[in-house]
Amino acid sequence: MAKIGKNVVIHDGATVGENVTIGDNTVVYSDVILEDNVTIGPNNVIGIVAGGNDRMRKENQSITPLVIKSGTKTGSLVALYTGTTIGQSCFFGDLSSVRENVTIGDRTVIGRSAIVELNTTIGSRCTVQTGAYVTGDSIVEDDVFIGPCVSMSNDKYMGARPFEMKGPHIKRGAKIGNNATLLPGVVIGVETIVGAGAVVTKNTKDQVTVAGVPAKELS
Amino acid sequence: MAKIGKNVVIHDGATVGENVTIGDNTVVYSDVILEDNVTIGPNNVIGIVAGGNDRMRKENQSITPLVIKSGTKTGSLVALYTGTTIGQSCFFGDLSSVRENVTIGDRTVIGRSAIVELNTTIGSRCTVQTGAYVTGDSIVEDDVFIGPCVSMSNDKYMGARPFEMKGPHIKRGAKIGNNATLLPGVVIGVETIVGAGAVVTKNTKDQVTVAGVPAKELS
Amino acid sequence: MAKIGKNVVIHDGATVGENVTIGDNTVVYSDVILEDNVTIGPNNVIGIVAGGNDRMRKENQSITPLVIKSGTKTGSLVALYTGTTIGQSCFFGDLSSVRENVTIGDRTVIGRSAIVELNTTIGSRCTVQTGAYVTGDSIVEDDVFIGPCVSMSNDKYMGARPFEMKGPHIKRGAKIGNNATLLPGVVIGVETIVGAGAVVTKNTKDQVTVAGVPAKELS
Repeated sequence: MAKIGKNVVIHDGATVGENVTIGDNTVVYSDVILEDNVTIGPNNVIGIVAGGNDRMRKENQSITPLVIKSGTKTGSLVALYTGTTIGQSCFFGDLSSVRENVTIGDRTVIGRSAIVELNTTIGSRCTVQTGAYVTGDSIVEDDVFIGPCVSMSNDKYMGARPFEMKGPHIKRGAKIGNNATLLPGVVIGVETIVGAGAVVTKNTKDQVTVAGVPAKELS
Repeated sequence: MAKIGKNVVIHDGATVGENVTIGDNTVVYSDVILEDNVTIGPNNVIGIVAGGNDRMRKENQSITPLVIKSGTKTGSLVALYTGTTIGQSCFFGDLSSVRENVTIGDRTVIGRSAIVELNTTIGSRCTVQTGAYVTGDSIVEDDVFIGPCVSMSNDKYMGARPFEMKGPHIKRGAKIGNNATLLPGVVIGVETIVGAGAVVTKNTKDQVTVAGVPAKELS
Repeated sequence: MAKIGKNVVIHDGATVGENVTIGDNTVVYSDVILEDNVTIGPNNVIGIVAGGNDRMRKENQSITPLVIKSGTKTGSLVALYTGTTIGQSCFFGDLSSVRENVTIGDRTVIGRSAIVELNTTIGSRCTVQTGAYVTGDSIVEDDVFIGPCVSMSNDKYMGARPFEMKGPHIKRGAKIGNNATLLPGVVIGVETIVGAGAVVTKNTKDQVTVAGVPAKELS
């Protein structure tokens, strides 16, 4: 049986599994599947359908539901979109948000105020620390650590050619230091370490450490 | 006729135009004018009157309403203040906020978790990307692109002289790369490009590219 | 007498003092003590009990209440945790959040979208500017200014050794420029100034100015 808080709005069509908890004042839209044992915090907005104005990218997408798998929890004031699938036993910090067409593996943590943009894949057992920004069209493999306030971008033409987007590809086990900046399309190698505050402008090798502006390999 | 969600609180005095939509659990305060065809998302707080404690700047301002013009939309969990005027067909991402005495032109996008401080002017067709911070007392002209996580400041004395504030002036068509840092009062020239992660400490010319820490013109 | 907005949920056990104001659609959990003359904004979540998944740090803590002292105010969409004590006449901007086991002095301002992590002490008359990130296990002394979008970290092993955490120690009257990056455990001296965009990798002296990547003392 689900445990539903006060002033919760669940729109027709949403699926709420066994032993689900939903906090007070949360809104759950129609295209949402909450599997058993999911916990949604208070003042969340769950199952948002992507909008925008005439200057923003439109995907020719059929709307698939937001699926949240067993044991995953959200904090307070979280915003999650349709078209996204979230694995088991993940945790979403307060004020975090995840857009459409995102896949997240199992046991991953998305920190407070962290942001995941559209069309991005994040693996299992990743940590996206507080305030980090994972841009659209990115690939984050398993066991990656993204430090607090890390920034990425996917648009080397900065709005001038809105049709060519490519975010970073961060390979298995890499660790990105806090407030580092990753440019569009860079590849961060397996188990590579990026220093805090680094600006990564080109691909790195596997299992190296890079730091500085622009980031260079430490010898 | 307006379409009002559940648990919406509209305080006396607010003006709600034709064909306005307001999402569930949103609060609309008194000094708000929502023109026709405006869409406000769920869990928003609209028409906040500026507060603060005794250590914060007080403007000797008469309270003017928050005006949101036709066709503008907000996402979820958005906070907008009185004394601000927002143009037509703008879009405000989830968890974004805009303070008092701000003017925003038409068709501008304020990204998710982006922040616009008080006494700032933003032109038409601008993009303020996700997580960017537009400080107070700034001027952003038309067609400017501000990348994700860009940071600005308006206070060269960092709290020691709270009466002298001046934010950046970003001229028409300039593009600021992600996580760049702009110091108080710098002027970014027309169609100039600032590289990702750059720290801009002095004015730039028009139509140049600057990058690095501190930012230098690329030859 | 308290002034309580619409759709407010106050859970059994919360203590609400004289002349307290609570905005619409706010949730107040059980372990909360709001002293006289406290003002809580709309759509807040107050008194959160720390959660997480199996990969996140668990403190062996008894739950103590969230105590908010007289005259303190919060904006909209704010999230505050149990186990934390907040002094008199503080101000919390919209979309800010403060975790458990934090102590904040009197008259301190926590800016919009700013974040304070667990086990941190912040003094009196501090300013944590908009979007700044104060990591866990940090010490911020009195009269410190932390500029917009400042980033800190407390985890030099980036998730590999989750038991050894130490954030920065920022001494009395220091000023940190916007978007500066502070590495785990660095000490910032009394009244020292850190330039905007600097990356501070080692301790600084008192009353000096440091800038650059990595930050060096200006002569």
